[in-house]
Amino acid sequence: MSRKKILIIGGGFGGLTCARSLKRADADVLLVDKRNFHLFQPLLYQVATGALSPANIAAPLRSVLKRQRNTEVLMGEVVGIDAKNKQVSLSDSRQFNYDYLVVATGSTHHYFGSDAKWEPLAPGLKTIEDATEIRRRILTAFEQAELTDDDELRKRLMTFVVVGGGPTGIEMAGAICELAHQTMRRDFRRINPAKARVILIENSARILDRYHEDLSAASRKDLENLGTEVWTQTRLTEIGDDFVVVERQGVREQVAANTVVWAAGVKASPLGRILAESIGSGVEIDRGGRVCVNEFCNIPGHDSIFVIGDLASQQGEGGPLPGVAPVAVQQAQFIASRIRQELAGKKDIRPFRYWDKGMMATIGRSRAVVQSGRWRVTGRIAWLAWLFIHILYLARFENRVMVMFQWAWNYFTRNRAARLITGNRDRR
Amino acid sequence: MSRKKILIIGGGFGGLTCARSLKRADADVLLVDKRNFHLFQPLLYQVATGALSPANIAAPLRSVLKRQRNTEVLMGEVVGIDAKNKQVSLSDSRQFNYDYLVVATGSTHHYFGSDAKWEPLAPGLKTIEDATEIRRRILTAFEQAELTDDDELRKRLMTFVVVGGGPTGIEMAGAICELAHQTMRRDFRRINPAKARVILIENSARILDRYHEDLSAASRKDLENLGTEVWTQTRLTEIGDDFVVVERQGVREQVAANTVVWAAGVKASPLGRILAESIGSGVEIDRGGRVCVNEFCNIPGHDSIFVIGDLASQQGEGGPLPGVAPVAVQQAQFIASRIRQELAGKKDIRPFRYWDKGMMATIGRSRAVVQSGRWRVTGRIAWLAWLFIHILYLARFENRVMVMFQWAWNYFTRNRAARLITGNRDRR
Repeated sequence: MSRKKILIIGGGFGGLTCARSLKRADADVLLVDKRNFHLFQPLLYQVATGALSPANIAAPLRSVLKRQRNTEVLMGEVVGIDAKNKQVSLSDSRQFNYDYLVVATGSTHHYFGSDAKWEPLAPGLKTIEDATEIRRRILTAFEQAELTDDDELRKRLMTFVVVGGGPTGIEMAGAICELAHQTMRRDFRRINPAKARVILIENSARILDRYHEDLSAASRKDLENLGTEVWTQTRLTEIGDDFVVVERQGVREQVAANTVVWAAGVKASPLGRILAESIGSGVEIDRGGRVCVNEFCNIPGHDSIFVIGDLASQQGEGGPLPGVAPVAVQQAQFIASRIRQELAGKKDIRPFRYWDKGMMATIGRSRAVVQSGRWRVTGRIAWLAWLFIHILYLARFENRVMVMFQWAWNYFTRNRAARLITGNRDRR
Repeated sequence: MSRKKILIIGGGFGGLTCARSLKRADADVLLVDKRNFHLFQPLLYQVATGALSPANIAAPLRSVLKRQRNTEVLMGEVVGIDAKNKQVSLSDSRQFNYDYLVVATGSTHHYFGSDAKWEPLAPGLKTIEDATEIRRRILTAFEQAELTDDDELRKRLMTFVVVGGGPTGIEMAGAICELAHQTMRRDFRRINPAKARVILIENSARILDRYHEDLSAASRKDLENLGTEVWTQTRLTEIGDDFVVVERQGVREQVAANTVVWAAGVKASPLGRILAESIGSGVEIDRGGRVCVNEFCNIPGHDSIFVIGDLASQQGEGGPLPGVAPVAVQQAQFIASRIRQELAGKKDIRPFRYWDKGMMATIGRSRAVVQSGRWRVTGRIAWLAWLFIHILYLARFENRVMVMFQWAWNYFTRNRAARLITGNRDRR
């Protein structure tokens, strides 16, 4: 009997954890990703605001897995899945067979049906390129504001709109405020960066609406102290070249702003639909394009196909599981253990149970909110917890030391060294 | 009498040093640069080979000059100089007057008349974007080699040609060898990166031909020990999509190679010609487009116009001064002092004299060559000297601490954490 082949698509939290958990599996593991690195997405907003460099939060997949002899890494884009013949095909038309398939390609931005129009106007925060592009836009806006004598234009350039009051949105808004009001305080001669307006737009009644009300209120206060205008119950209806249109309490308002950052909707990666089409009837796809999986992270009736992470829609105890890293990691560990058992000839019948250790979001220097079960913390202690957990998780990806030094450096100097405007069209 | 205006174009070694040296000048200093950061170009090859991040070797100009109250920074591109009316104009058609003009816009690549054709095929190493593009090409070549079953193609993908045996060329060739033969040694399963070919092409009889013969020989030996093929007396006659053509000892040879890095000719920034045309007769431009200046770094007859750094052609004791950072820095200090004296009503008649402290180049881990007067060193001691000097100079630009940590980390782990393939056309 030949060794079984386990094919993992996607090197994010789910896919990479799964590969690592299969370290001692008696099987050939193949990890395929479009990029050559794992990205620690929760810290992307720090790249977008010049606090960290891309390499601080990215780890080359080959480097992470180089000592794992049963595992191969391939850089390529999966464009087709043939579930009947247990085969996937890459964009360069090469094909690979599998015995077990793990699909963990995550999610991308979703602009509520206005993707083509809004995406270039309001980049989201999913890739390194997104982050350096947002960094370029924010920093260029200040440079242009310094150059102009036109009051209207200057105001527009110094207005930043962040769409979406989830963790990414509030971290982004807080970081732009810190960048403008603290880091760059003395950098300009004509403009006063402290006058930059940062507006956070949230559709529902409060920001961080998955958190306890007290924490929503605390994070709102922290954000306002940093200088963010928090507009809840505000619906975004249009994004233009240099403005956004919102509806607040039934009133339509146009806000002149050159820089808009998207932190609202996401939709699942297109591979979910490709997989569903290949299998045919019986596969459910939810509204966000996620593949519905059972309590074993399988597509019902297909025990050798697993879907995990943001691409999967799975029912937990209190409804569908959220699209956060801990869910993907725990699912990955669960299915890796299940596959290992099966390879050893045992049958594991325990279903997946998500252990919700809690959630946390940071709002600038020394402020955060943490919620874990009934335990709720705000302020400096929450921030230290945030710091500790993030360094701990980064640790697995070899980047801990550099990030720690960079953060310590930034903390004490209040500097953000990675404030580079790069990659614009006019290259020289 | 109103305060004098000193306008500096270019924030490289020359321009930035000049601005800093004018800290206490009783004048308004305006520094204009196309980019928002100063770039420590001598370490660009480390970005191109994944050892450092762009932000490690770049310092935001505003950040460097923020405490210097007489100085303003503007991000913009100078497209015209009107020497008669003492005015420069930017690409956005804004104009600025000056009493003193310092032009320090440096140099760019030069492909011996084949610029349009060769530039996209063989990027040089002048900007952050150049470096990340070269990094992308090198790393992608290995990824594609791992994917292919075609022996010919694999060989071609794993052949790297560096054109030019000056310091940049040898540092680049050495770093590619280290990356392939050491850092990525265990990263792949199908290819053996140790088999990568790195070919250094040099037109003249020896590499580092401005150095003493002993050092040329030593660096050649070091490079060969690292695995570089050093082809001297070899003329590059063509660059194609996946090959180069060279002439060695009269024999034409075609080498299949997917990745070519340009480290040969440079030409002066176009601003030299713009300046010369504005002044009219009497301004000499040399073959490389450099502006000939007198012993005061002035264009003869124009005491208020200074040209320094790579854009200037100035006679030293042993012929024209080389296009290296120390020349630009010393010229900048000289003219800053001259302008300060003049502002104070004194007339300084001492001409500029370049104090050649020596030159150094590094060839991979623990190897370098240093030449200072009659003092010549190779090996580990030279490398420690190289390390010390570079950290010392970086120190001025606030990045010392992070680079030191990153280097120490890389040295002990033999890792290069910034091995990211970013910015390719297919963004997601």
